Amino acid sequence: MTGEPPVPVITFLSDYGPWDEFVGICHAVIARRCAHARVIDLGHGIARHDVRAGALALRAALPFVPAGVHLAVVDPGVGGERRAVALRTAEGGRLLVGPDNGLLTIAADSFGGVAEAVDIGDSPECLRPISATFHGRDVFAPVAAALADGVALDALGEPLAVETLETLELPRAHRHGEVLVAHVLTIDVYGNVSLDATPELAAAAGLKQGGELVVQSAAGSTPGQLGRTFGDVPPGELLAYGDARGTLALAVNGGSAAQLLGLGRDDEVLLRAR
Amino acid sequence: MTGEPPVPVITFLSDYGPWDEFVGICHAVIARRCAHARVIDLGHGIARHDVRAGALALRAALPFVPAGVHLAVVDPGVGGERRAVALRTAEGGRLLVGPDNGLLTIAADSFGGVAEAVDIGDSPECLRPISATFHGRDVFAPVAAALADGVALDALGEPLAVETLETLELPRAHRHGEVLVAHVLTIDVYGNVSLDATPELAAAAGLKQGGELVVQSAAGSTPGQLGRTFGDVPPGELLAYGDARGTLALAVNGGSAAQLLGLGRDDEVLLRAR
Amino acid sequence: MTGEPPVPVITFLSDYGPWDEFVGICHAVIARRCAHARVIDLGHGIARHDVRAGALALRAALPFVPAGVHLAVVDPGVGGERRAVALRTAEGGRLLVGPDNGLLTIAADSFGGVAEAVDIGDSPECLRPISATFHGRDVFAPVAAALADGVALDALGEPLAVETLETLELPRAHRHGEVLVAHVLTIDVYGNVSLDATPELAAAAGLKQGGELVVQSAAGSTPGQLGRTFGDVPPGELLAYGDARGTLALAVNGGSAAQLLGLGRDDEVLLRAR
Repeated sequence: MTGEPPVPVITFLSDYGPWDEFVGICHAVIARRCAHARVIDLGHGIARHDVRAGALALRAALPFVPAGVHLAVVDPGVGGERRAVALRTAEGGRLLVGPDNGLLTIAADSFGGVAEAVDIGDSPECLRPISATFHGRDVFAPVAAALADGVALDALGEPLAVETLETLELPRAHRHGEVLVAHVLTIDVYGNVSLDATPELAAAAGLKQGGELVVQSAAGSTPGQLGRTFGDVPPGELLAYGDARGTLALAVNGGSAAQLLGLGRDDEVLLRAR
Repeated sequence: MTGEPPVPVITFLSDYGPWDEFVGICHAVIARRCAHARVIDLGHGIARHDVRAGALALRAALPFVPAGVHLAVVDPGVGGERRAVALRTAEGGRLLVGPDNGLLTIAADSFGGVAEAVDIGDSPECLRPISATFHGRDVFAPVAAALADGVALDALGEPLAVETLETLELPRAHRHGEVLVAHVLTIDVYGNVSLDATPELAAAAGLKQGGELVVQSAAGSTPGQLGRTFGDVPPGELLAYGDARGTLALAVNGGSAAQLLGLGRDDEVLLRAR
Repeated sequence: MTGEPPVPVITFLSDYGPWDEFVGICHAVIARRCAHARVIDLGHGIARHDVRAGALALRAALPFVPAGVHLAVVDPGVGGERRAVALRTAEGGRLLVGPDNGLLTIAADSFGGVAEAVDIGDSPECLRPISATFHGRDVFAPVAAALADGVALDALGEPLAVETLETLELPRAHRHGEVLVAHVLTIDVYGNVSLDATPELAAAAGLKQGGELVVQSAAGSTPGQLGRTFGDVPPGELLAYGDARGTLALAVNGGSAAQLLGLGRDDEVLLRAR
């Protein structure tokens, strides 16, 4: 392939799920507008309308993804007042396309934040008539394809003041002496609980790799261990570990940590060494 | 890519689901026969053996898809008497490959109907021995790949009389004065109900965008609203709207319209302004 | 594409499922290391941590797949003692990458067994720091991409003695006079039961295509038929057939054979003509 320009990459994340034709139609729309782009699906299994889960998945994925156009659609407000946007990050030359509901901004924060933003809700690239319920097809995919094809961001819509973009409030773990005060960011389909703390913060609170700990939650005090992988604890036992996203997580070997600990999103948990 | 011939596109729709290796094996078979084809998955989550749902999804997708080879497999009769076919549409140069059970024909109707058809059940392209249960791998994928590679349709099997192709009978909505008489085409996993009527027919029956309406079904009379998107009605309330496929649909904000209205496929519903 | 070198193919099979971003991140990691490779997903719906089901799916798929790099990840022991390996088969030039837990070896057996093996757990290609839970991203995908990019196997890790590789013990069907003694290899989501016997062995035991048979299991004696496809028996009736993988299988038309026969993995079933 020497001498040829690199193939533009579009990544695509959504909550469209594996059952409907929505993902495929967006691929088709991209192929019609920019046939030489390569589309990498980052997953379409985000829980329906769960903007925060989508935002965290996007943030986790982007450091491993080639620079390019990053299309993301988790869009409970489709057809309503929320804006549709395309963004350029300050660092790394990432172009993000999706609804203006916070889905994109925490990923952008990992790349120096947003340097430039345009409102693409009435972009010349949109497929018309624009439906009320499928902006993935009619707005986001064609704009992402145009960006991959080399169209300048400012040709795709009206400029936006960056500070008007929606952001997501995430809880913030902290250390209170020897107690780590953390909160539930997400719970996956297996009941594994992702917290807002890092393994480094856990270490600062005196939690040692391989050491025993106790987790205080709505379910009371539950003993566990700080380990590296499920196999570090017996079946049914609680494990705290640094997950693949680099955050502290809770799991039960062969079970559900969320159920054992009685946890839901944003709930507070206290961890300390035992 | 200037100067190069365009990359042939194969789209692929099926009911194989996300769990088995069936989709992947069809991709592999295509890659061996026509390595330079680009395969776009239009989705593999059609309800198992639901030919009508597959046919409607295919019809909805094709207008957004580049012209090429369109492979579709929803095939309850695999291994039995049903024929395997490849079709060329009268307009738009679409090539459709799949079982002769009605899956392909209503999509072809959007492109002027079928101009040419061949029986590919014993095509020279088939992988042999042809299994009794996996014609996607042994019949449909290799024929689709051969078409993408430029093999002529009439070299792929025996010519068929177009009028012998299976078709699907779909119900037909109509207006009876100020009453819209419609029927259930499909129900999705969220309980959203797709009808056989268009928003235009609803307008002809006096239903106004934003106006109140009443839906009569097995569950009695249920009040609702003609809106654009879920957010137009309060949680738990009934919405009629034009969906992304351009058809009239019923949904409940945060609930299941099929359950609320007691609806199954082909059931009749009456809508009128209130 | 005349004159250009062929595009390297990487196939990818896993138990990551359709819900998380894991598959997509592996695709992204591959694209960064070997942008011109083509990745064919062989499916990611293997039951979680079911190494045998993954191994059988891989074995079933490979004969239909272009020669290349075959990445497979079903990895209950991730982060523990199990080795990470890359293998070259004796025949067909297949390169297999995954955990050393038996997932790869029975597929390799179809290609003359393993000719060369390296331990890639500390490969120079790994993304560092290597996480404890996501070796797909940090170990397997980058090594697979490097192989596709032309890096020699022995440059990717420490050589391993082939005879130290983990293997899977599979049950073995046999014929006892006119009785076929078989065992359950896998059960799919529909309750279809895959056995360790071939249709040829069934024929040797006197079972005739289209003939009646009886299946003895924990549920007692159940009558059925040896057919080719579900439609060969009435709804609710038991069918034995050669499945798409070339193995003997049991199904119930519109039902679950596993439930009807009370079968779980490795259970013994006896089949004889009636």
